[in-house]
Amino acid sequence: MSSPKGDIGLIGLAVMGQNLILNAADHGFTVVAYNRTVSKVDDFMANEAKGKSIIGAHSIKELCENLKRPRRIILLVKAGKPVDLFIEQLLPYLEKGDIIIDGGNSHFPDTNRRYEELEKQGILFVGSGVSGGEEGARYGPSLMPGGAEEAWPHIKDIFQSIAAKSDGEPCCDWVGPAGSGHYVKMVHNGIEYGDMQLICEAYDIMKRLGKFTNQEIGDVFEKWNKGVLDSFLIEITRDILKKNDDDGKPLVEKILDTAGQKGTGKWTAINALDLGMPVTLIGEAVFARALSALKDERVEASKILGGPTIPEDTSKIFTDKAKFVDDLEQALYASKIISYAQGFMLIREAGKTYGWKLNNPAIALMWRGGCIIRSVFLAEITKAYRENPELENLLFNKFFTEAITKAQSGWRKTIGLATEFGIPTPAFSTALSFYDGYRSKRLPANLLQAQRDYFGAHTFKVLPECANDHLPAGQDVHFNWTGHGGNVSASTYQA
Amino acid sequence: MSSPKGDIGLIGLAVMGQNLILNAADHGFTVVAYNRTVSKVDDFMANEAKGKSIIGAHSIKELCENLKRPRRIILLVKAGKPVDLFIEQLLPYLEKGDIIIDGGNSHFPDTNRRYEELEKQGILFVGSGVSGGEEGARYGPSLMPGGAEEAWPHIKDIFQSIAAKSDGEPCCDWVGPAGSGHYVKMVHNGIEYGDMQLICEAYDIMKRLGKFTNQEIGDVFEKWNKGVLDSFLIEITRDILKKNDDDGKPLVEKILDTAGQKGTGKWTAINALDLGMPVTLIGEAVFARALSALKDERVEASKILGGPTIPEDTSKIFTDKAKFVDDLEQALYASKIISYAQGFMLIREAGKTYGWKLNNPAIALMWRGGCIIRSVFLAEITKAYRENPELENLLFNKFFTEAITKAQSGWRKTIGLATEFGIPTPAFSTALSFYDGYRSKRLPANLLQAQRDYFGAHTFKVLPECANDHLPAGQDVHFNWTGHGGNVSASTYQA
Repeated sequence: MSSPKGDIGLIGLAVMGQNLILNAADHGFTVVAYNRTVSKVDDFMANEAKGKSIIGAHSIKELCENLKRPRRIILLVKAGKPVDLFIEQLLPYLEKGDIIIDGGNSHFPDTNRRYEELEKQGILFVGSGVSGGEEGARYGPSLMPGGAEEAWPHIKDIFQSIAAKSDGEPCCDWVGPAGSGHYVKMVHNGIEYGDMQLICEAYDIMKRLGKFTNQEIGDVFEKWNKGVLDSFLIEITRDILKKNDDDGKPLVEKILDTAGQKGTGKWTAINALDLGMPVTLIGEAVFARALSALKDERVEASKILGGPTIPEDTSKIFTDKAKFVDDLEQALYASKIISYAQGFMLIREAGKTYGWKLNNPAIALMWRGGCIIRSVFLAEITKAYRENPELENLLFNKFFTEAITKAQSGWRKTIGLATEFGIPTPAFSTALSFYDGYRSKRLPANLLQAQRDYFGAHTFKVLPECANDHLPAGQDVHFNWTGHGGNVSASTYQA
Repeated sequence: MSSPKGDIGLIGLAVMGQNLILNAADHGFTVVAYNRTVSKVDDFMANEAKGKSIIGAHSIKELCENLKRPRRIILLVKAGKPVDLFIEQLLPYLEKGDIIIDGGNSHFPDTNRRYEELEKQGILFVGSGVSGGEEGARYGPSLMPGGAEEAWPHIKDIFQSIAAKSDGEPCCDWVGPAGSGHYVKMVHNGIEYGDMQLICEAYDIMKRLGKFTNQEIGDVFEKWNKGVLDSFLIEITRDILKKNDDDGKPLVEKILDTAGQKGTGKWTAINALDLGMPVTLIGEAVFARALSALKDERVEASKILGGPTIPEDTSKIFTDKAKFVDDLEQALYASKIISYAQGFMLIREAGKTYGWKLNNPAIALMWRGGCIIRSVFLAEITKAYRENPELENLLFNKFFTEAITKAQSGWRKTIGLATEFGIPTPAFSTALSFYDGYRSKRLPANLLQAQRDYFGAHTFKVLPECANDHLPAGQDVHFNWTGHGGNVSASTYQA
């Protein structure tokens, strides 16, 4: 057999896999394509792949034989069991130093496990987030690879070639160890949940409170897409709102208002709870989808639960329509800043907890283009982390400190109106509560600690400036609030 | 050896265990006490247990030999490994039909597992929530037992005797199968997190916005404790706020404002995400604790992040102080109704998901007295579920429909003020957003579904009343938004 020609192999010929192969072939790489249902390989070779530097493989063995060493194989198969099964099938044909890349939406603990298992066998395992949908896969996705760092020099060229470019830079860099690539993709998706929820709240306020037509709302998104909110999601929202069905009525108004939430958004919120980081906006966005799914109950509830009347005459709500829209833009912008600040807080904490050294500026750059949350906004975040890769919080960067301080007036007014007239704004509101809590030197948790000590002897700490002989600083103090009962503090019992 | 005298055995002589033993002895039961560190048994027997119907055991064997059959043994040890270790040690001395009760704060999946393992060996396993702190354990806790129902007739008398009483009824009844007792205790604790956060927000608003002294705030809680909010937590908050240190300054103001959140509240929020139920208030309460823990960051942030100025002259905030307090009471009351409605939504969904037939009126009654969240309010919830045990949502009960509809004006005003002047109200606000979302026949999730279909071909469903030939009802529809790209809908790829 002549020396193998394949630069990279890809398993899984669903739409994402096919598009990624075509993308790599366009960039001059020879790709070996394999699919479990082998007829799909032949179909692909006879159609989309025809005349391109793509080799069809009819078995795992053939796939591996056609690859240069170290072999580089991307799995684009359904997350979960299929990933493990393909790894198992690959192993007999691989040699030490070969590279397996999981490009699916695997949960990062699975990637951690696979990374460790394959490390023992000398196989370099990479878990890579891939974002951008079918279009992204075809013409430039955002790629977030992490895992065995020794693999990076061998895949860097291919990955950065096929990735999206932003201001000439590839939206792909090395994230960090073990499952960190999939972790960062998970947080990306969580943020995507948040962004979508924020846009939905803005739309709902314009529709229900402002009585805007869909065309008018579309115009607002078009305008916003030229300012600080310029982003893929704002852009497609404009398109969606302006799209009418054949009967001339807005298509989006015909869509059932229930959304699923069984994916990466949920994982992000659960991880935030696990790590004790207040990623409230993603949490609310996931819960908002859950609430949307309770359609029948909502219809029932709408008949019996009272609320404020929204005046038909909008002059009773706002006198200056442009100002109303500008305030709303500020609400969306400020909430978005909070959401990204929370997302990076979570990533920072994950780095500490899991012992990952993470590349913050690279993460921002990877999200800058190619992926669903791509935006002008992320250029500012990239800049902030390039200025200071160890930035403790995005809100501490001068640009964002000033932006959010300035945006708060419109943000507060918008929430004030929604509160008064009964439009739900779970994401806007939680963002503001976070902001006001985060900038609070003192929160009321002192009372909470007193309550816990009162009923469960859970102890508390004393403010350093208030310490005295019976309330020593730095120690766990129990106070006998009732004057009876023991002075014993709780150890095993909780609440 | 003469026939055994012990009615029930108890392992674990920390403060909760000791108090539960004394409580049972007071009610005429003979209790056999054992502790791993045996000297603790002797200490207990020589002091607190002296002259009471309590038998000290120096080994597991002795404990078991002293018990009537079926043996009934309560474990009150640290959740996790210790529970498994004691079960392992007990098994050689037990016979089929004997009963092990875990009274600790075990996570319900652990209880499910133990229930199944022990069922195979013919041992009846019960996981029982125990709430009420040391005082409750001594004079009447709330007990929430679930698991092997065959055990119930054998423990009912003891459990209901030692439990708290509410209007003459014991705050203890059978919850349901497997881990459902610990599950219900977990939700109880989550609700407790929520109640505490709501009280903290009310305190913060009176303190920072209303410039009330602690005595004045204490007076408000005293007044509230005579109305709809009458409850243990409001009562102790009154006491805490009125407690001064030796120097005459309020003790609570000397306590560090950081709270931990690594427990059952977190489990509840994670479970809500897993089951797709919008239990937003507990979620925010857990996150609020997480935010409180970031004290150093908050101190930093307080110096640079701008906010509204709170006027020194409160007449610029409210003209009628009594009205301000009444509005706040309504905000707290309405938010509390939402939190309990969400908690029962979660329990309902858990019943469906885990296949548990749960006793809703009994759950409300168990929380009515003895436990940390005990309140007059829970008498209304008990009544609601007694009227209709299958009540779909607490908000659909006439009493609560009316109460929350009436409370919303003060609720909205309070959040409006907090929003305007920069006091964080994560729990008040999320409760209102939930309320306004839940009573929304249409939410903006239609736009979200359009977005997902646009970038990921995730498909959507059509509103039945809008269906036509190319937008059929009840099916997953994909629309080609861009006019290019495929018509293939996504299957494996997600966002």
